[in-house]
Amino acid sequence: MPAPLTTPQVRAEYQRLKNQPRALDMTRGKPSAEQLALSNRVLTLPGAQAGDYIADDGTDVRNYGGLDGLPAMKQLFADILAVPRPNVLVGGNSSLSMMYDALARACQFGVLDNAGNFQPAWHRLAARKFICPTPGYDRHFLVTEHLGFELLAVDMTESGPDMRQVEALVAADAAIKGIWCVPKYSNPTGVCYSDATVQRLARMKTAAADFRIMWDNAYAEHHFTGPPQRLENIARCGEAAGHPNRVLQFASTSKISHPGSGVAAIASSDANITEAKSHIAVQSIGPDKVNQLRHIRLFGAHDTDTNTDTAHDRLSGLRAHMKKHARLVTPKFAAVLEILERELGGLGLAQWSTPKGGYFISLDIPDGKAARAIELTAAAGVKLTAAGAPFPYGKDPRDRNIRLAPTFPPLQDIKQATEILAVCVQLAASE
Amino acid sequence: MPAPLTTPQVRAEYQRLKNQPRALDMTRGKPSAEQLALSNRVLTLPGAQAGDYIADDGTDVRNYGGLDGLPAMKQLFADILAVPRPNVLVGGNSSLSMMYDALARACQFGVLDNAGNFQPAWHRLAARKFICPTPGYDRHFLVTEHLGFELLAVDMTESGPDMRQVEALVAADAAIKGIWCVPKYSNPTGVCYSDATVQRLARMKTAAADFRIMWDNAYAEHHFTGPPQRLENIARCGEAAGHPNRVLQFASTSKISHPGSGVAAIASSDANITEAKSHIAVQSIGPDKVNQLRHIRLFGAHDTDTNTDTAHDRLSGLRAHMKKHARLVTPKFAAVLEILERELGGLGLAQWSTPKGGYFISLDIPDGKAARAIELTAAAGVKLTAAGAPFPYGKDPRDRNIRLAPTFPPLQDIKQATEILAVCVQLAASE
Repeated sequence: MPAPLTTPQVRAEYQRLKNQPRALDMTRGKPSAEQLALSNRVLTLPGAQAGDYIADDGTDVRNYGGLDGLPAMKQLFADILAVPRPNVLVGGNSSLSMMYDALARACQFGVLDNAGNFQPAWHRLAARKFICPTPGYDRHFLVTEHLGFELLAVDMTESGPDMRQVEALVAADAAIKGIWCVPKYSNPTGVCYSDATVQRLARMKTAAADFRIMWDNAYAEHHFTGPPQRLENIARCGEAAGHPNRVLQFASTSKISHPGSGVAAIASSDANITEAKSHIAVQSIGPDKVNQLRHIRLFGAHDTDTNTDTAHDRLSGLRAHMKKHARLVTPKFAAVLEILERELGGLGLAQWSTPKGGYFISLDIPDGKAARAIELTAAAGVKLTAAGAPFPYGKDPRDRNIRLAPTFPPLQDIKQATEILAVCVQLAASE
Repeated sequence: MPAPLTTPQVRAEYQRLKNQPRALDMTRGKPSAEQLALSNRVLTLPGAQAGDYIADDGTDVRNYGGLDGLPAMKQLFADILAVPRPNVLVGGNSSLSMMYDALARACQFGVLDNAGNFQPAWHRLAARKFICPTPGYDRHFLVTEHLGFELLAVDMTESGPDMRQVEALVAADAAIKGIWCVPKYSNPTGVCYSDATVQRLARMKTAAADFRIMWDNAYAEHHFTGPPQRLENIARCGEAAGHPNRVLQFASTSKISHPGSGVAAIASSDANITEAKSHIAVQSIGPDKVNQLRHIRLFGAHDTDTNTDTAHDRLSGLRAHMKKHARLVTPKFAAVLEILERELGGLGLAQWSTPKGGYFISLDIPDGKAARAIELTAAAGVKLTAAGAPFPYGKDPRDRNIRLAPTFPPLQDIKQATEILAVCVQLAASE
């Protein structure tokens, strides 16, 4: 390992880098062009020949009808989330919208407690609060902020949210109505919740009878090339603990096929699904069935002679597809981790996550230095996610966290961006 | 003209018809298989070759981004609704969802008055009410019922809602927050609002500062083969009257391409669009841009050499496409009208609308007889829209209205269904 740079050397190196014009962007968790190309076949599906637009349950997907989704699409999400098919409701192109709508409905109409009794609409309460494990996903936090919740930060640990903090909060305050969770390859820490964490979330005593776990399993199938991480089944845990209506699970194909034109779904208890449908039946004429069929055909073996979609092949088709994604993104994450280790390892300046899947690396640098490091990096032509974004109200109380999103840019850009970041971290720390 | 049947003859004829097994369905305003086939090309679009998925503004539609829609899609809706492009916000597959969401947001957050000041959230008010011109569209009424509005019926006339009733109501009661309108080929009466009606709606004094006209221009381009009906520009009238924020317009491609997998849009004032986006930016990652591009390419002349979509050709492309729809649906409406005239004309039993476009015929029979006639018709194997559906709370106070939806079944079925209905109307009237 080379000797660490002295402060004057860091300053000189930064000046040198800054003088080279560049415009690199590592702000967003977006698939790269190569990843998008993996799903280009979906852009010609389902096809215009007779039979192409008839689902295997006989539905002509071109006309009205079908509130909860094609059976085959429900089954695929049921397989991904390991829940029974009737507990899935298929939506539009955005799981975030389904989360927003679920919470907006709770505010407007109220939701069920675990005995199946309606509780008062949340907008009638004097206060409503929501737990935000941090660092976490900014768009989650923004939804609850926008809907009038006070955001309560709890720390993320290696095994998920700090459950002692969570349990103490929810037991004491009935105004706390829920918690945001990205349980697998969490945004941005890459953490997979431990079995014990999942069980404690399902089991814990909450002062609110209508507490909700917003279980955004956005990266359920988004492993790198190593072995997939295990995730305990929160729905089963909730049921076993007598809290069947506590858990709302979400998934989508956004980072499986094409973001923005994929298919999203919610899964929950029978009672919650029935209740959600009672509202959605008024709100919507039904989700886009053509797009569902496109995705079924993209992942499934389709026999055009018999017009049959081979159900059991669809999840394995999707997993084979995700292996191609893994081969594209894994080297990018490896490059970032290697450079962080080479440039910052052993300096005592920084710690970072080493995810096994997902879209992010979380980097912690000395307190009070994150905003400055991101500013220095930007001045050298490298845009990173805004400081504080992964925290409630966009404010990192320790100003130390930096979210890295290595999937979108080409590998060479990622390497260069990370090298520049490493210099900026050292410079910020020295100031 | 043959002599009208005597009551015993009607009874005998009904028994004869009832003894023939059949299952005809005229309940829903759905396009027929032939109409769906007109748009089958959309099922292979945009295509998987480089350039196929790049919009003419350079957007790669496969990735995240683009909250308010592709410029070309915004332009197409701007052309349909005759508003400036910046006043359009493109949504997902359902204009009904956009209407629901707009009203749900008004309940949750409040909306602007015409001076641009925020008014209190509607859920804070002791009462909220909404005007429903009847007969009208059941799904509209259901949205406002579900969101906690009291529904106030006003009569539809040949020129739109009875404006004396409307003006008296809205002037007197600040709890009345809006009115539902299908201004062109109205569901189910086929009425096109007169210029004077449009101007009065835009101009009228409302006790509520944040009154909203829900202008569902669902059939803007859905003319039969005759000349298109004219519709005054409500947005311009609202602006001229000093009520720029009163009007929310909606349109979709649902009955232009394929229902359920089309594209919807809202149009309103700058201030309302900005306000709507402030919420939708939190709720959504953005609408499905691939589906927008599909529709742009379906209607537009696309030059694959230069990757240019010819803007001015898109509206004319859509209109040429709608002429094909017209050729399919016009004979079906003509058949219903001809049979109604032949079987019921001059009997003094019934009146019906003679629409120039849209999806419905509205039939009025003697008071207290509609539910019975529909019941008799069903017993003879012909399903019609449920009695009362076009009225608030599903109750026709005079029990006289029957909605006919002639687009979906084959022409022979429609003829048979109408003949049976004519007998049932006579039988119900005689009882």
